[in-house]
Parts: sequence; structure tokens; C-alpha cells
Amino acid sequence: MKVSLKELKENFNPKLKPIIWNDDKNTLTLLDQSALPFETTYVELKDPEGISSAIKLMKVRGAPAIGITAAYGMVTALTSDTPETLEEAIEKLTKAKKVLDQARPTAVNLTWATSNMLNNAKKYVEQGEAKSVNELILLLKRDAKKIFDDELEAELQMGIYGLEKINDGDTILTQCNAGGLATGTGLGTALAPVKVAHMLGIKVSVIAPETRPWLQGSRLTVYELMTDGIPVTLIADTAVGLVMYKGMVNSVMVGADRILSDGHVFNKIGTFKEAVIAHELGIPFYALAPISTFDLKSRVEDVKIEERDPDEVRTIRGIPIAPEGVKVYNPVFDVTPPKYVTAIITEKGIIYPPFDKNIRKIVEK
Amino acid sequence: MKVSLKELKENFNPKLKPIIWNDDKNTLTLLDQSALPFETTYVELKDPEGISSAIKLMKVRGAPAIGITAAYGMVTALTSDTPETLEEAIEKLTKAKKVLDQARPTAVNLTWATSNMLNNAKKYVEQGEAKSVNELILLLKRDAKKIFDDELEAELQMGIYGLEKINDGDTILTQCNAGGLATGTGLGTALAPVKVAHMLGIKVSVIAPETRPWLQGSRLTVYELMTDGIPVTLIADTAVGLVMYKGMVNSVMVGADRILSDGHVFNKIGTFKEAVIAHELGIPFYALAPISTFDLKSRVEDVKIEERDPDEVRTIRGIPIAPEGVKVYNPVFDVTPPKYVTAIITEKGIIYPPFDKNIRKIVEK
Repeated sequence: MKVSLKELKENFNPKLKPIIWNDDKNTLTLLDQSALPFETTYVELKDPEGISSAIKLMKVRGAPAIGITAAYGMVTALTSDTPETLEEAIEKLTKAKKVLDQARPTAVNLTWATSNMLNNAKKYVEQGEAKSVNELILLLKRDAKKIFDDELEAELQMGIYGLEKINDGDTILTQCNAGGLATGTGLGTALAPVKVAHMLGIKVSVIAPETRPWLQGSRLTVYELMTDGIPVTLIADTAVGLVMYKGMVNSVMVGADRILSDGHVFNKIGTFKEAVIAHELGIPFYALAPISTFDLKSRVEDVKIEERDPDEVRTIRGIPIAPEGVKVYNPVFDVTPPKYVTAIITEKGIIYPPFDKNIRKIVEK
Repeated sequence: MKVSLKELKENFNPKLKPIIWNDDKNTLTLLDQSALPFETTYVELKDPEGISSAIKLMKVRGAPAIGITAAYGMVTALTSDTPETLEEAIEKLTKAKKVLDQARPTAVNLTWATSNMLNNAKKYVEQGEAKSVNELILLLKRDAKKIFDDELEAELQMGIYGLEKINDGDTILTQCNAGGLATGTGLGTALAPVKVAHMLGIKVSVIAPETRPWLQGSRLTVYELMTDGIPVTLIADTAVGLVMYKGMVNSVMVGADRILSDGHVFNKIGTFKEAVIAHELGIPFYALAPISTFDLKSRVEDVKIEERDPDEVRTIRGIPIAPEGVKVYNPVFDVTPPKYVTAIITEKGIIYPPFDKNIRKIVEK
């Protein structure tokens, strides 16, 4: 099927809208992800302080979503209490960047977005492109929208490439939530082909493992697909093997947190088991990620796998489920060696083995 | 290491004692498994009604444990309110059987144990072996104890055979709870080699996946190993792949619910994924089960995999963790094909491939 990115973008209007900029009111509406999936509530924010607080309270989460939110947070520094001079405007933006950056100190996309917005603003003022505060606001709104649009375009493009791997009637097994909640666009990475297929009237359904310990599968993926009207079945993580063994899965599509130059895929804990079983049973396994995910410098043995609080495994939603004080190993990611990866789907195209040659060809082009 | 069953049995005195018969008081003390792992409480029961209620309330669970409990329940029919005549005794036993059987109508071990006890009693009376009610009580106590002892001996024997597969310093990955809580002896099937090794001073530790949706791993396996002082690490089910990939696992030891003549192993959901990954990474995978587990008649395609209430996946301990009404697939067991099974360890010896020949040799001998 020949699909045009332009046409797809024009028709993209998902029910799931995690981030909405209200241009008439200069406010940002966020779907409160901290209350999901039990309550669908929205918060409307008008200034950097409110937006910073929403990021801190995880009302918005996921690296790209935080970046987009922070970019609009910078815009509100000038719209919530409009300064009189351009000099004052840069001061306000500098202050807003500090307020926003401290919300999630380790979020790279956050500081990337606020730095980008501040540097652009300085450039517009210095180079005379913005001759008034109002002109500066318009330019920054355009830049924030571009961050959102670039993200969405990359995801739509991944969706279009991923479509090649989906047949009518397919069921896709995923892992965690690599969807439109995390990216803020409502589309997502691993879920992009499924959603694009659904937009085009191709019949497709998803099996979502709950993804302990954080339950991103049951809390977020299931919510997001149900919202968009895409058939989804929730399973316990223990059932991933059986659904593949029983022939219920046509392909596995997962996101990625980091992909090395030789094709090692770091992703949410549990991905590796899906990859190995898929490989063994002859089911294709695809990792979907934007080019920004590739780390061409590190070797697999250099990447440290983050471990988190043992209480995430000892409890669920604050309720104890194991004996107090039991020793826990709680890694956040696992690593899938390239031999189990059928292909990597990016916004620049599909990368096939041998990955140690083909990844550089796409990423560096 | 040469280990004698007799010596091992004499020295077997675990801290974990799920079922204790108090011969001086004619009472049965049960570790209340429904409160585990949060509270370690015991209930002392003196009659069939109390014991039936304890079975119904899941204070005792696991097929062999229920069988042992029910056998002692039959004894208490005669000790709690001792009849005057042997005829009256048989009447009381017949009534007690009904009371006990209805506690868990589908538990095969329950009705097996109560039928066994009632038939024995009738035989002792008919054949004049029991000349008084007191003599009958003594004979039935001996029979109940024999059910417990036979179970324990079979498990110790599995433990001794399994020892061959354990080296000092090993870490064993298991699944679910195939331990002494389920069997009532305090030893177990899959955990028998680990516990026997620990008794003999061999250093061994366990990695226990939590085993959603029922969390038998975090609630029971972890509790039982901590009670016995055996080092155990709890992981989310998603982490089984990474622990094997990182070389943290020397072998996988799991129980089995049913083993077919060609070596297909039905066991708790999640077992298959461990078997496939172990196979792929060259880690031995052992199923441990008594001979009674073998089903030499069924073919793999004939065995229906039980599905349970979707709310087990939608909630944890009554707390919702997924959107209301989400479609769920909740199978209880999965099936591991023989190619992933390194060996099957029974009380009659270790069975190696080719299973389609070697299983019959052991089971039918």
C-alpha cells in the first residue's frame, strides 16, 4: 500500500491527545497520566511554574512528551505575564528554563528543549528577527509546534515503514508502553504501525503484557489502544510464551531505549524474552525507534543496566505482595542481541542485518 | 556425594512446617497459607468440620497438602467425639468424608485421601484387624502418617536425584511454588534438590520470579525459602531473561502439573519462556515431578489449558491495575515441548531424552 506522509499527517486526529496547545488562550492542556488508567482528567496550565509542577508530578511522562511540554512551558513564560521589552523577555525565558529544568533533573529531552527554545529566542533578538515581544512569542510558538510536528512526522514515518510488516488481520505482541502517551503525540513508536494501519482501515489487534514492575502495559498501553478503538488483549508477563506458542502472534513490535552500532537493543525489561521466543518460533521481532536512539559509540559491555527500588517488586500500588525485606533484583532494561532482531524500523527506513554494517549506513546518512 | 534416604529422612526437620499432627492432643495444626507471607499464623483443628472449613478457606492449599490434611481430617472424625461401636465409627467416617470432600469439589487428592481412609477403615473392621474403636483409630493414624511419609520420601528421593545436578555455589531459577507449602511436607518437588543441598551444607541459592497473576513466587516460594534460611532473590517475571543472559543462573528447576509420554511438560504459566531461553543459552532445564504426574494417554493437542478469571490480571490483591473491562487472556498453564527439557527428575530416577522411549521405561517399571 502506497501511503503519503502528508496525507496521513493531515488526517491524523486520534482520540488520545496527551498534549494540546490552546493557541487562543495561550494555555497547555495535559492528559493527567499520573491518574491513568483509572481517571481520564486533563489539567490546563498557563505558566512555567504550573507546567514544571506537572512534569515533576509525572502528570506528563516519557522523554519526547516532556520535551514538547517544556518547549510550550517556555512559550508561557512570555504569554502568562507578557514583558514590555525584549531584554526583559530573555530574562523571563532564562528564569523559566531554570524552573522547568529542575522538574526532572535527569531528563535529557527536557533540557534539550528548554536550551533550544532559549537559544532560538536569543538568536531572534540578536539578529533582529523578532522586533517586538509579540513577534518573539509568535516565533517561539512556531518552534514549540515544530518540536511536536517533527516528533509526529518521525513517528508517522516509522508507522508507514512498519506498515510493510503488517498484514490485514495481524495480531502484534508489544511490551511496555512505546505509544503516544510517552511521546506526547498520541501516536508513538512501537505502536505507530498499528495505529497507522488502524487509520487506513487495516484490521489489526495488539496483545499487551502488563510489564511488571511498573505495569506500563496494563496501565498505559491498554488505556491508549482502548481510547483509539484498537482491539487489545491484556496478558500477564508469564503468558508471553504461550501466546506465541499457540500461534496467536504474527509479529513482535517493541520500542527501544538505546540501540548500539552492532544492533544490540536495550529496551524495557522483558523485551529479551519475547525476542528469544519469537526467534525460536520463527515470529518476526521488530524494534522501532527514532534515529536519536542510536548510540554508535558504546560497546554492549559498557552499558550499565539501571536498577531501581526493590519496593517496586515487593509492592503494587503501595500494597505489599512479598515478605518484608526480601532481597530483590530489579533491573529496568534488558539487552537483546542482534541475532534475535529481525529488523529495526526508524523514521529513515528499515534496517536489516547485518546490523554492524547497515546501522551506520542509515544513521550517518 | 552418596546420600542415604534413611539418614536424610531422620535428619529432616525444616523450620517450615505446613502440617503438624499433634498425636497427644489428636489435633491438626496448619500453617495458615491464606495469610502468607504477611502473617505467620497457625490454626489448631480438632474435627472434620474445622478441617473442611480450613481447606475451603485455602488455609491449606496444594494437591498433596490437601490430601494429607483430609486424611488427618478422617482421623479426627473418631477422636473429636469418639463413637462407642465400630459400626458407629464407620458411620462417622462416612459422614466426615462428605464434609471434607465438599470443601474443594475438584481436588482429586482430597477425595483420593478420604476414600482411601474410609475403605481402609471398612477393611480393618470387616477383616477383624480393628477389634475396638481405639484400635481402629491407631490404624487410621498410621495410614494418615503413611500418606505424609510416602509424600516426604518421594520428595526426598527427588531431592537426592536432583542433587546430581547441583554444584556448590549454584543459583537455581524456579517458577511458581513447587515447594513444601504446596506438598505439605515442608520439602516440595522443584525445591527438593535445593533444600536437600542446603541440609547437606552445599551452598545454593534461588531466584524466584513473582509468577503473576497469582504471585505464588513472591508470596510463597520466597516466604518458604526465607523461613528455611536459603538465600533467595525475588524478580519480576519480566526479568527471567536478563538473569539468564547475565550468567546469574546455573540451572532451571520447575515442578510440573502433567507430563505426557513424549515429554511435553504442562506447568504454571511462564515455564515455557524459561525453558526456551535456557535452551537458547545452554542452561539446563529440569522438570521435577512424582510419577503420579505422568499422563501416558493424552496427546499434547488433547490437553485443554485452563483459563481463569480475567480479574486476576486486572487486579492485584483486589486493587485495580488496568482499565475496567479490558479484554484479558488468563491461561493458568503453558506447555513446554520436550526439545527444551534437559531431564525430568522423579522419585524413581532421572529421565533423559529421548523421552518418548525413556518415560515409559521409568513410569511403567
